[in-house]
Amino acid sequence: STIETIRRRWEGALPPQVVLGIGDDAAVLRPAAGRRLLVSTDLLTEGVHFDARVPPRALGRKALLVNLSDIAAMGGIPRAFLSALALPRETETHFVEELYAGFEEISRAYRVPLVGGDLSASPAGIFLCVTILGEARRVVERRGAAVGDLVCVTGTLGDAALGRRKMLEAESEASPLRENPDLAFLWERHLSPTPRLEAGNLLAGEGLASAMIDISDGLLGDLAHILKESGVAARIFRERIPRSPAYRRLCGGDDHDALTGGEDYELLFTVPRQRQAEVDAIARRTRTDITVIGWIERGEGIRLVDEAGGESRVAPSGYRHFG
Amino acid sequence: STIETIRRRWEGALPPQVVLGIGDDAAVLRPAAGRRLLVSTDLLTEGVHFDARVPPRALGRKALLVNLSDIAAMGGIPRAFLSALALPRETETHFVEELYAGFEEISRAYRVPLVGGDLSASPAGIFLCVTILGEARRVVERRGAAVGDLVCVTGTLGDAALGRRKMLEAESEASPLRENPDLAFLWERHLSPTPRLEAGNLLAGEGLASAMIDISDGLLGDLAHILKESGVAARIFRERIPRSPAYRRLCGGDDHDALTGGEDYELLFTVPRQRQAEVDAIARRTRTDITVIGWIERGEGIRLVDEAGGESRVAPSGYRHFG
Repeated sequence: STIETIRRRWEGALPPQVVLGIGDDAAVLRPAAGRRLLVSTDLLTEGVHFDARVPPRALGRKALLVNLSDIAAMGGIPRAFLSALALPRETETHFVEELYAGFEEISRAYRVPLVGGDLSASPAGIFLCVTILGEARRVVERRGAAVGDLVCVTGTLGDAALGRRKMLEAESEASPLRENPDLAFLWERHLSPTPRLEAGNLLAGEGLASAMIDISDGLLGDLAHILKESGVAARIFRERIPRSPAYRRLCGGDDHDALTGGEDYELLFTVPRQRQAEVDAIARRTRTDITVIGWIERGEGIRLVDEAGGESRVAPSGYRHFG
Repeated sequence: STIETIRRRWEGALPPQVVLGIGDDAAVLRPAAGRRLLVSTDLLTEGVHFDARVPPRALGRKALLVNLSDIAAMGGIPRAFLSALALPRETETHFVEELYAGFEEISRAYRVPLVGGDLSASPAGIFLCVTILGEARRVVERRGAAVGDLVCVTGTLGDAALGRRKMLEAESEASPLRENPDLAFLWERHLSPTPRLEAGNLLAGEGLASAMIDISDGLLGDLAHILKESGVAARIFRERIPRSPAYRRLCGGDDHDALTGGEDYELLFTVPRQRQAEVDAIARRTRTDITVIGWIERGEGIRLVDEAGGESRVAPSGYRHFG
């Protein structure tokens, strides 16, 4: 059976934190003494989170990568994952094999074993639920941002959303975009986000980050979560928002995707101003670009400052600009 | 939003093992020192695992109860759960409220808080993925059954499957079954299985059970899992298989549902013969019926012995009788 095949494939290389993997009523893990346990679950639905454009191997990779990013955003280290899958009867075996091959690639790269799951029929559409377990000595929540803290992000923003949008454009006609290497880069960013585990763990472990989240809904939306939980406002400088060369070439000065596009899975965090040098050291040590894009102020919501110094406000409730 | 409502509802009463519940990138738990961590995930699909016959509150209850049963089958104590839900756009708010009310009933009764989850759209059908976390000083796996051990079960078998079958019959016509209190009892057994947490935990903690599983697929199917993992055979006496008075009245001598019907979520375990008195003591202490239905032998597969002493064999691979 498929479960037996999957089980045998994953049995060999169980790391020391796993006492018992796939195949019993529950997996059994050995938590490290004195650490916090982290757990998060994500449900991916065909037609909502992915479609036939995403090959099954890429889907497996991404489903695990975005869960690793949740652990990174807490400052933790991933330890194990479970996957529950509902498949329509007509799904080919090849699809399942490729999906698990995608899991396996990321599992090996990040040393996070599959320890359990479920496999069921679906009347229509593919559903994939991944649960990730991690641990941390010290976690960073969303609610610790303080007035005066710097607002920082890793990597570049908007690549995933722009990649997805341009890919849809490229498909709709005999578009010159199809052969565009910038689009290939952005699409890859959409398919294979980089969980910022090392940076997240160091930012948490050294007590640097006062609040942290990963950008899944878009910069403005996820920053709004931090601000609301922390009871503060932020001033963000649009020209400081890091955009990739591919983004700039395909999009010119338009920063809409960088502001509101989701699925970049970069870290967004706040840090006391006097500790900026330590953040720079972590950036160098982990070879991760980290950019200061603004700071925390009293009040609520986001003040967006453009190059000319003009200011617009973003409602605390979400993405819509006004004023 | 729905998530905010759910979050507020669950925020108040977090037990000491929960550092951070719903609303961040991951939940944060404080594992007890020296315990094993247990984790299991189940995906329930509309049209496969449930249908409109099951009211949403009962669905919420059952989804959590069957996960508690997985922890019972390992000998553990449940500590927290997560729920991921995909809903078609036309789903009424009332459905979600009732589903969560069902979670809440069981959550309070068993002191297992909801610490996280996901809520997403579904193109068609309702999908519900529950992940349970538990802990145990000592776990019981499926693979420890030894030649000479007794085979025991808690409660009565076949009620859930017979209840479901008779309910379908009762619906299909103006059936006298509709008013039958025995059917009401069996249907309740189908909707609200009893996770045998206290018995499971004592059987594990005192090192009594050598192998344990909960009966989700049916006695023969789940016993086959224990036998295969342990490399042994079993002799089972059909007249010893415990059946409820309601089952006997509705089904006479037919033991098909008791042998192969799933979803009873009773514990099936093996125990060294010389420790039977300790098992009886646990039965009394936890007010759980525990019945010896046979013993473990050399070989493979199941030998079913009927009242007249006739013997039939069940293939090690599954339910099909032959010989």
